[in-house]
Amino acid sequence: MINIGVIGFGYWGPNLARNLSQAAGGKLTAISDLNPKARAKAERLHPSTAVLDDPLRLIAMKEVDAVAIATPVSTHFDLALAALQAGKHVLVTKPMTATTEQAQRLINEAQKKGLTLMVDHTFVYSGPVRKIKELAAKDLGDLYYYDSVRVNLGLFQHDVDVLWDLAVHDLSIMDFVLASQPRAISATGVSHVKGGMINTAYLTAFFDNNLIGHIHANWLSPVKLRRTLIGGSRKMIVYDDTEVSEKVKVYDRGITVAESPEQVYHQLIGYRSGDMWAPHLDITEALQVEADHFTDCIQKKARPITDGEAGLRTVRLLEAATRSIKEHGRPVELAAAGV
Amino acid sequence: MINIGVIGFGYWGPNLARNLSQAAGGKLTAISDLNPKARAKAERLHPSTAVLDDPLRLIAMKEVDAVAIATPVSTHFDLALAALQAGKHVLVTKPMTATTEQAQRLINEAQKKGLTLMVDHTFVYSGPVRKIKELAAKDLGDLYYYDSVRVNLGLFQHDVDVLWDLAVHDLSIMDFVLASQPRAISATGVSHVKGGMINTAYLTAFFDNNLIGHIHANWLSPVKLRRTLIGGSRKMIVYDDTEVSEKVKVYDRGITVAESPEQVYHQLIGYRSGDMWAPHLDITEALQVEADHFTDCIQKKARPITDGEAGLRTVRLLEAATRSIKEHGRPVELAAAGV
Amino acid sequence: MINIGVIGFGYWGPNLARNLSQAAGGKLTAISDLNPKARAKAERLHPSTAVLDDPLRLIAMKEVDAVAIATPVSTHFDLALAALQAGKHVLVTKPMTATTEQAQRLINEAQKKGLTLMVDHTFVYSGPVRKIKELAAKDLGDLYYYDSVRVNLGLFQHDVDVLWDLAVHDLSIMDFVLASQPRAISATGVSHVKGGMINTAYLTAFFDNNLIGHIHANWLSPVKLRRTLIGGSRKMIVYDDTEVSEKVKVYDRGITVAESPEQVYHQLIGYRSGDMWAPHLDITEALQVEADHFTDCIQKKARPITDGEAGLRTVRLLEAATRSIKEHGRPVELAAAGV
Amino acid sequence: MINIGVIGFGYWGPNLARNLSQAAGGKLTAISDLNPKARAKAERLHPSTAVLDDPLRLIAMKEVDAVAIATPVSTHFDLALAALQAGKHVLVTKPMTATTEQAQRLINEAQKKGLTLMVDHTFVYSGPVRKIKELAAKDLGDLYYYDSVRVNLGLFQHDVDVLWDLAVHDLSIMDFVLASQPRAISATGVSHVKGGMINTAYLTAFFDNNLIGHIHANWLSPVKLRRTLIGGSRKMIVYDDTEVSEKVKVYDRGITVAESPEQVYHQLIGYRSGDMWAPHLDITEALQVEADHFTDCIQKKARPITDGEAGLRTVRLLEAATRSIKEHGRPVELAAAGV
Repeated sequence: MINIGVIGFGYWGPNLARNLSQAAGGKLTAISDLNPKARAKAERLHPSTAVLDDPLRLIAMKEVDAVAIATPVSTHFDLALAALQAGKHVLVTKPMTATTEQAQRLINEAQKKGLTLMVDHTFVYSGPVRKIKELAAKDLGDLYYYDSVRVNLGLFQHDVDVLWDLAVHDLSIMDFVLASQPRAISATGVSHVKGGMINTAYLTAFFDNNLIGHIHANWLSPVKLRRTLIGGSRKMIVYDDTEVSEKVKVYDRGITVAESPEQVYHQLIGYRSGDMWAPHLDITEALQVEADHFTDCIQKKARPITDGEAGLRTVRLLEAATRSIKEHGRPVELAAAGV
Repeated sequence: MINIGVIGFGYWGPNLARNLSQAAGGKLTAISDLNPKARAKAERLHPSTAVLDDPLRLIAMKEVDAVAIATPVSTHFDLALAALQAGKHVLVTKPMTATTEQAQRLINEAQKKGLTLMVDHTFVYSGPVRKIKELAAKDLGDLYYYDSVRVNLGLFQHDVDVLWDLAVHDLSIMDFVLASQPRAISATGVSHVKGGMINTAYLTAFFDNNLIGHIHANWLSPVKLRRTLIGGSRKMIVYDDTEVSEKVKVYDRGITVAESPEQVYHQLIGYRSGDMWAPHLDITEALQVEADHFTDCIQKKARPITDGEAGLRTVRLLEAATRSIKEHGRPVELAAAGV
Repeated sequence: MINIGVIGFGYWGPNLARNLSQAAGGKLTAISDLNPKARAKAERLHPSTAVLDDPLRLIAMKEVDAVAIATPVSTHFDLALAALQAGKHVLVTKPMTATTEQAQRLINEAQKKGLTLMVDHTFVYSGPVRKIKELAAKDLGDLYYYDSVRVNLGLFQHDVDVLWDLAVHDLSIMDFVLASQPRAISATGVSHVKGGMINTAYLTAFFDNNLIGHIHANWLSPVKLRRTLIGGSRKMIVYDDTEVSEKVKVYDRGITVAESPEQVYHQLIGYRSGDMWAPHLDITEALQVEADHFTDCIQKKARPITDGEAGLRTVRLLEAATRSIKEHGRPVELAAAGV
Repeated sequence: MINIGVIGFGYWGPNLARNLSQAAGGKLTAISDLNPKARAKAERLHPSTAVLDDPLRLIAMKEVDAVAIATPVSTHFDLALAALQAGKHVLVTKPMTATTEQAQRLINEAQKKGLTLMVDHTFVYSGPVRKIKELAAKDLGDLYYYDSVRVNLGLFQHDVDVLWDLAVHDLSIMDFVLASQPRAISATGVSHVKGGMINTAYLTAFFDNNLIGHIHANWLSPVKLRRTLIGGSRKMIVYDDTEVSEKVKVYDRGITVAESPEQVYHQLIGYRSGDMWAPHLDITEALQVEADHFTDCIQKKARPITDGEAGLRTVRLLEAATRSIKEHGRPVELAAAGV
């Protein structure tokens, strides 16, 4: 039995706590929050769990084996480091840390101690994304592009901009689905609130083999859109997360290129248009799958799908995008950053 | 009565010819095309119109007062210049020319001769776009962003890439609706066909006052999307050209910022969510409105809405985007280009 | 303070209990259910509420002022009658009773005792339906038709057929919105399960002045549809409850009839097509509005919007429809039934 | 070569003429219309075709082998009979005739003369409907219901009501897809224009084995809907003709009934929810397929898919529905009518 403590019981913490309390081989042992109202809520929802006001006391609890951190990004590093140093396994919400350097130090610490370090890239564990991963690996052919739109009205964040708040979802899904990493990032964005965070942003990721990724994140859209297009040489996918059913549609469409031996100019491009197919999707709550995976990885000393490296890769792209936005789209190379 | 000749009777020429033949005060007098099949079609559809194989002979015809050019982009400049030099008014399809220099020379020639020079930015004359222009001017408040997606499967072009083929529509609409010009462009894009044209492209336009424009153009999408979001401080618009009716929806949604006197960090952002409204739109064919405008401008010696300057501005953005794409998004300043 | 007991804690009871526990001037005092699992759940969710296994004991509790009944339809009459006889106000879920006779007896009993008798026609209290009621009264002009589709896959009921399970919603909304009653009903329907309940049904209601109502209810549809069209002489409504936002759309569309003085045959019918408008809707949970209305009516001795008469009217239509279905659509007059 | 004459060049005639002029083995030889404007249009579009003002002269033309009739319904019988008596093959638009008796007489005449008699049930030849026919035969399992909605604003007809104008499409598709005939019809409907035609109508068709058909036809809807649900024991179909692509969706959904040996009441109903699949559809214009089928049937003396009997069956249902509407839904048996 793995005893788990949850730090932070604001917006996301209750979801983590509920799912971890039901994780195979897991037990919700403690919850901490600085806010008395959040603690009262925790006591009501989890009457048999210890509720504390001090995260460091929670980390210090002997009976706690693992800690889930659902606090503002700026506190992730200190809390996760303290937990690892105290010998606890860690699940940290996204984005993993505020800098790549912090992410790397957590990875090193976890490795040194032989502890599980996992990042809560929730969507990676959802039915639609797991199905897309499967399709990308065997049905799509050569990958051409990954294009994602995640826009809606609000909620403006105080501590992170729209890339670190919304695009992080797409970057983590893209990392999982494409299983390769961009060479460079070009990003653009603006703030429409004086002194405020960037609320409208665009990010292009350049991969090898002309694969291109693009993300549009916006807190100021009149409508909610959650739509990803994935183009491959054999099939293409439309993933619309606002649909109630048929969230993933697979199109047997594409082009065929008959290259002329004499002259590139004369190559003939044909169009293929076949069936569309919407596979049945697992509707288990993503966070439940993730919670089970967390306890399972701890027990088997296995590497989580969204391990510290996945968290680091995502933070690295966010960092590069932030730098590129400041220079109006100037590309930021990632090779130098190493992996 | 203005006698009009149409050069090029391939894909778009027949539409131009049909609408110009019905334009108020206009008469379709001649059509030319290099292709015998196209000429046969022209003879069948316009039995009382002269059909020629040589565009220069058409330009030379005394009875022709104005010429509409619907040929590949690479030929626009030579044909338009010849027509202007022969004293004919000119309507040229988009993009106006292959370079800004060519566009500028046509403008100069038309001005010198006192002739009407108009660019066929068709969408500007459509019911939805005219309504959006009206709304942008009086209902939206401060403009925040203009975001457009124009993607579908095919048709790959041989002589222009996806920006010059598809994004040109959005750039010309954006030019008309925003009535201001970007300071810089950052664009990214790739080709997935060896030696082929860029088929997936993204373009960011930076305007003053944090207004940002963005266009996604793609020839390789499994689904056809034609959707523009326009954000303002008072209202927001969704324009979906694939809808049969209600193409333009106006949302009474947005944010309110209550700035704290002490500290920017504490500013409170509120959300406003009111009615949605889909105005009734004029369904007159855009090209008919445009054809009437062309003959009207000639008769009244008036400046067309989509005059040579509008064509030049659009070509300038395309040129800048093409340069930026080659450098993976490095921003290209437009100030130096002058206007 | 009104002390409320909830009888039945299966599918709908928990929702009633939660909302009644938050009703203005109300207090959730007791819950009863025959099923031990349901009682355990009630104890967990409402730790300070008495949980009983016997509904009659709950009804007998002195401190209980009002009773909400969320049990199978066949038990509504006996439980509601017992509650009224014990001097308790009653809120009963839909359909009110299994027969009109039962409904009439409950109305009589409540009147005799001066007690509030209310039927849980939940949708009547929802934001969309309240807005539609408002629009029907002042914007639509003469009403032409009310057409509703409520179909999905499952859940097949054991004790009521698809009309008594799904169409009852539409009949209660129609009763509220149209504020007039049909003269006759013609209904058709079939069962596709041997010996089972009717799972696909159609109902036409004939009103005065050529107003027609129609409902399609189906447990065996591959897709979920919840769509009502309401036609008026001035405006028309589309109400789609599966939409996340813009559930109600008002169309400024219709016909104009220019009658020729000589001959009806020559009347000219014109078509009007104006703006569409989606009013902002109150998103308060319908059941919360209803719970507040229940305690308010008790306190003010006011007649509920969905009083016993509304319940009776709906049961009368269901009874007539059931009779008509057995005779393959033969119309059943409602005049004789009197109101 | 079959020489074809087209009678009636109003709304639908030009489509028939265009497609028949391109039919394999066919030649458009003559067109007649009473209206001079229609004749002028015919001359312009078909310069090498004889254009007459008298349909009987067209029928009398020696060189005419076959006649297509696209005139108001009330004239179908006289014109078709005259053509058959003159030894011409006949294609007549829908509904075939104004009465079953007329339809039967045309069938008899054609048979006597050994001529092809075909009814223009256009949708039967469309890609979506041909695919549905294929699916109904091999994939759906036992058929449960056929439910169709065909509503929009306008165009009110003078000579036929909304059933004979719109529902005739659905009845002809249903006849083709189900390949069985109803035992009885119950229909309801009203007119909202004084002395006018019924503009809102509902029709239920009762088949053997609890298969039920239902059609909703309405000229007074604010939105255009063209949606058919077909339920089977193994799969279900949604056919939405307003979709640009994916008009036909096949759902692997349904119920499973585990009957209890003891008691019907205890039967357990399970729900099955699998993939959705949108087959690629032939996009050849339906009328072209139909025109080719017409000339092919004449040449091979084959029985057309939509022969006179199909026309008769559809008229019989319309007649029964008209009778039922007058009696507010009273079912009209079809057995007595024979087939």
